[in-house]
Amino acid sequence: MEEKEYLKRYWHTTSHILAQAVKRLFPEVKLGIGPPIENGFYYDFYREKPFTPEDIERIEKEMRKIIEQNFKIERIVVDKKEAEKILKDEKFKLEILSGIEDDKVSFYKQGEFIDLCEGPHLSSTGEVKYFKLLSVASAYWRGDEKRESMQRIYGISFPTEEKLKEYLNFIEEAKKRDHRVLGKKLDLFSIHPEIGSGLIFWHPKGAIVRKIIEDFWKDVHLKNGYQLLYTPHIADISLWEKSGHLSFYKEYMFPPMDIGNGKFMQLKPMNCPFHIIIYNTKLISYKELPLRWAELGTVYRLEKQGVLHGLLRVRGFTQDDAHIFCTPSQLKDEIKNLIDLVYFFLKKFGFNEFEVYLSTRPEKFVGSIENWDRAISELENALKEKDIPYKIDPGEGVFYGPKIDIKIKDSLGRLWQCSTIQVDFNIPERFQLKYIDEKGNFSQPIMIHRAILGSIERFFGILIEHCNGNLPFWLAPVQIKILPISQKYINFAMEIKEKLKDFRTEVDLKDEKINKKIKEAEEEKIPYMVIVGEKEMKSGKLSLRKHGKGMVGEFEIEKLKEIFKKEMEE
Amino acid sequence: MEEKEYLKRYWHTTSHILAQAVKRLFPEVKLGIGPPIENGFYYDFYREKPFTPEDIERIEKEMRKIIEQNFKIERIVVDKKEAEKILKDEKFKLEILSGIEDDKVSFYKQGEFIDLCEGPHLSSTGEVKYFKLLSVASAYWRGDEKRESMQRIYGISFPTEEKLKEYLNFIEEAKKRDHRVLGKKLDLFSIHPEIGSGLIFWHPKGAIVRKIIEDFWKDVHLKNGYQLLYTPHIADISLWEKSGHLSFYKEYMFPPMDIGNGKFMQLKPMNCPFHIIIYNTKLISYKELPLRWAELGTVYRLEKQGVLHGLLRVRGFTQDDAHIFCTPSQLKDEIKNLIDLVYFFLKKFGFNEFEVYLSTRPEKFVGSIENWDRAISELENALKEKDIPYKIDPGEGVFYGPKIDIKIKDSLGRLWQCSTIQVDFNIPERFQLKYIDEKGNFSQPIMIHRAILGSIERFFGILIEHCNGNLPFWLAPVQIKILPISQKYINFAMEIKEKLKDFRTEVDLKDEKINKKIKEAEEEKIPYMVIVGEKEMKSGKLSLRKHGKGMVGEFEIEKLKEIFKKEMEE
Repeated sequence: MEEKEYLKRYWHTTSHILAQAVKRLFPEVKLGIGPPIENGFYYDFYREKPFTPEDIERIEKEMRKIIEQNFKIERIVVDKKEAEKILKDEKFKLEILSGIEDDKVSFYKQGEFIDLCEGPHLSSTGEVKYFKLLSVASAYWRGDEKRESMQRIYGISFPTEEKLKEYLNFIEEAKKRDHRVLGKKLDLFSIHPEIGSGLIFWHPKGAIVRKIIEDFWKDVHLKNGYQLLYTPHIADISLWEKSGHLSFYKEYMFPPMDIGNGKFMQLKPMNCPFHIIIYNTKLISYKELPLRWAELGTVYRLEKQGVLHGLLRVRGFTQDDAHIFCTPSQLKDEIKNLIDLVYFFLKKFGFNEFEVYLSTRPEKFVGSIENWDRAISELENALKEKDIPYKIDPGEGVFYGPKIDIKIKDSLGRLWQCSTIQVDFNIPERFQLKYIDEKGNFSQPIMIHRAILGSIERFFGILIEHCNGNLPFWLAPVQIKILPISQKYINFAMEIKEKLKDFRTEVDLKDEKINKKIKEAEEEKIPYMVIVGEKEMKSGKLSLRKHGKGMVGEFEIEKLKEIFKKEMEE
Repeated sequence: MEEKEYLKRYWHTTSHILAQAVKRLFPEVKLGIGPPIENGFYYDFYREKPFTPEDIERIEKEMRKIIEQNFKIERIVVDKKEAEKILKDEKFKLEILSGIEDDKVSFYKQGEFIDLCEGPHLSSTGEVKYFKLLSVASAYWRGDEKRESMQRIYGISFPTEEKLKEYLNFIEEAKKRDHRVLGKKLDLFSIHPEIGSGLIFWHPKGAIVRKIIEDFWKDVHLKNGYQLLYTPHIADISLWEKSGHLSFYKEYMFPPMDIGNGKFMQLKPMNCPFHIIIYNTKLISYKELPLRWAELGTVYRLEKQGVLHGLLRVRGFTQDDAHIFCTPSQLKDEIKNLIDLVYFFLKKFGFNEFEVYLSTRPEKFVGSIENWDRAISELENALKEKDIPYKIDPGEGVFYGPKIDIKIKDSLGRLWQCSTIQVDFNIPERFQLKYIDEKGNFSQPIMIHRAILGSIERFFGILIEHCNGNLPFWLAPVQIKILPISQKYINFAMEIKEKLKDFRTEVDLKDEKINKKIKEAEEEKIPYMVIVGEKEMKSGKLSLRKHGKGMVGEFEIEKLKEIFKKEMEE
């Protein structure tokens, strides 16, 4: 944690150095804000002309000079009147100042440069060793589309050259793996903002992967005592009032559709209320509990245009949702089963490193403290009994109950939250859920919300980046490509395809040199290539090539099938 | 056809006899309209008090009297002025009269009763032999919710007692099989008008059937050279303008959602434009055609409240949609393949009688006559080469192209249209679809829309009624129920269940007499029951009972598995 704090300070100071350099080179520029962010920092500038790559180079050079000059960084506290004088030429800063309630405000000063800032900072500019400006993007002042468009310069800095290089490599690698780039190259999906921002069109090669994921998901759930549901995508607004979504979630919901006679329908942002409706269609006995109801439910959320990002942040997505209704005494075992299920799924997709968080009661909450404490201790006991290391996130539970979040670490070391297990005290109350207990009385069931992959779209995006588009054999849209050495061997290739019909196999029919065919199959990231020509036809032994690895050997068809079958099971 | 015409006349006259009887018994009643319908007739009456069952009996008695009186039925033509006099006490008839443009209007008179009517009718009331009044429903005058609520009396009549009995039996049987009744009884689905009329909630037992249907559908499609797609449920209104839906289909579309910045999104009533968007993401070569793209796409249509009916007419449903893009020379083979596929599917679900219609060019159409003629002849040739008997529906094609509709006959002899194969000349034009042909030029592909089941919801409804809720073994939510003779044998029952885990098997855990358990399993329409008790435990031979058939015999577990496996394959 201390290193993180230090880096924040480090980045914040680098952003001030950036602003100082910009003001030296372009005095007419007006300053916005310049905070440290998760990785690095940015500073927003208002300038009529765009910064060119040459400008950025000059700015970097000037920053180096400021570092060499090693200015002492001083914190200065003044009253607002004095602050207004200092900022008289900076209209954006004055706007910030006018929003501050305290009479005293702090500035940070280094050399000739002074900036309204809360800090903290390093003690001198010379402490910054290695830095790099990364990109320029545009951003509305205060995120408001009606205000000025600023130029946001992003950068990164580290105390050692090694760390900087490592980070730049990481960015480079992440760029290459960008699922938006790979999605297009491998023809997996597309997005068409003119038809709807954040809506995914699954092309045949993406759709077959999704189908395999969904089939696997359904089968595993059925084997684990779940039942499936299908529910509508729209509901009368009265349902969303009752569920509390119109109080707590309105801004993320698509606006209502006026269907006449005073009735309004709204797209669902969550599946829960629909499952509740089904729960309440009959009287449930304790003998039927736990009920585990799962749905691949497509929901719609009106995310801000600016935060949309490929498959990772969208407006329409399919949750691998489930709700478990159980008695209080069943809670711990259900959680333990869920943890097993989560790990089983994530490992199946090639994720092996996890971070687990248990989030406890926030300041605003519903339900009794007694129930919260009990649920938290059940969650904690389940984790302990499963020997799962976890961290407590104090007060970070949802208002309706405590939760366990399981984050996965991808091959670039990035953490992604997909799986979540949440206890809910709100909905059972609002919808008066009940069951008939052993004594014949009505009791309130405990309700668990859970998602394992989170969203099929987002999980697919993460998976593509994690494996750099090299989907594991069982998921690859095309598993095997048969490459005839020339057109003469196409019939033979088709025979082989027929023999491999248990797998997703294609024949390259193009009249091209074998090397070009191999190159193309490699670019398509197809796991296996089978090469067939004169030699293969005569011997009955087929040349097998593995993606990225080259030749594996020559095998008879039955042996090939065995190899592929083994791959399927892995 | 002549018998149909005669029955229409027969039913029309019976409706006049009904009106005459009502006017004799309740002179204050105002007459609405009384047409023959597909099966029987109705007459709408305005009366403050509702007709009671006793009233209906009295009316029937009076009708019999009118038939005995054997009035001659005369057609009388008068001018409008004279007509107004005749109708002076009938405000609804006067309203109809005011809407007639001709100066001459016709009446039909029988005894003291006279009615504004175009006819035709039988020659005398005595010609009506056997009739029955069936039900009373309410209906708004002219279908307008803001007008008077009329009482609509439905009835049926036939020249022979046998025909009448047959029809009444049919109604009785259809009522018992009503999928809305069975859906509730078997806990398959529910509808909640307060949350949204015409929206289906699939309960676990319905959802598992849907999953099996969908899995089967996808597998068969993949094996038949189809690729799958997934597309969003909403799109910017500009897409619906371009596709023509906002011109031709607006009244069935849910109203737009205003998402700000002048943008409006609308729920999709059809999937086609989305598939087109994907088609247009890259250049397609003739070598890639035909492309067969399938999607289980959920669409939303704002059907009028009054026409909604269980699963059969809904507002949200999942089409088993596909679009085929092919060259003109591929059209006939594609149609032939489609016919095979349709028959394969429908037979798999137990439908064996079909009526096939070929609908030709309507008055309003897009595309060239040459293309229409060519497509019609290709459709016709495909049907001929497949030896499929068909009828021509002249001028009944959609404005965008000719089509083949395949109707299924259910076990009650009712016809249902599910499968449709439609050629489309409109969308390829509007969206400028193209492919690179053999000569390297751009050509326009032919586009076929097709659905086999039509809508999963509707097909499921028809299927439930067709098999009276006795879903075939491969679709039954629970295939086998194990019934322990007493609680002592529950462990043994669980062992058997484990051995039958390839099937959907349940154990009846309730502490009840075996006869009650059998009765319940029969009511749940579970295909097989396995009874286990002392005798079965000792001998290892299990008693097998078949739904509706009783005991089948005693079998060892391996033999049982064989029996069930064979059932799966049927």
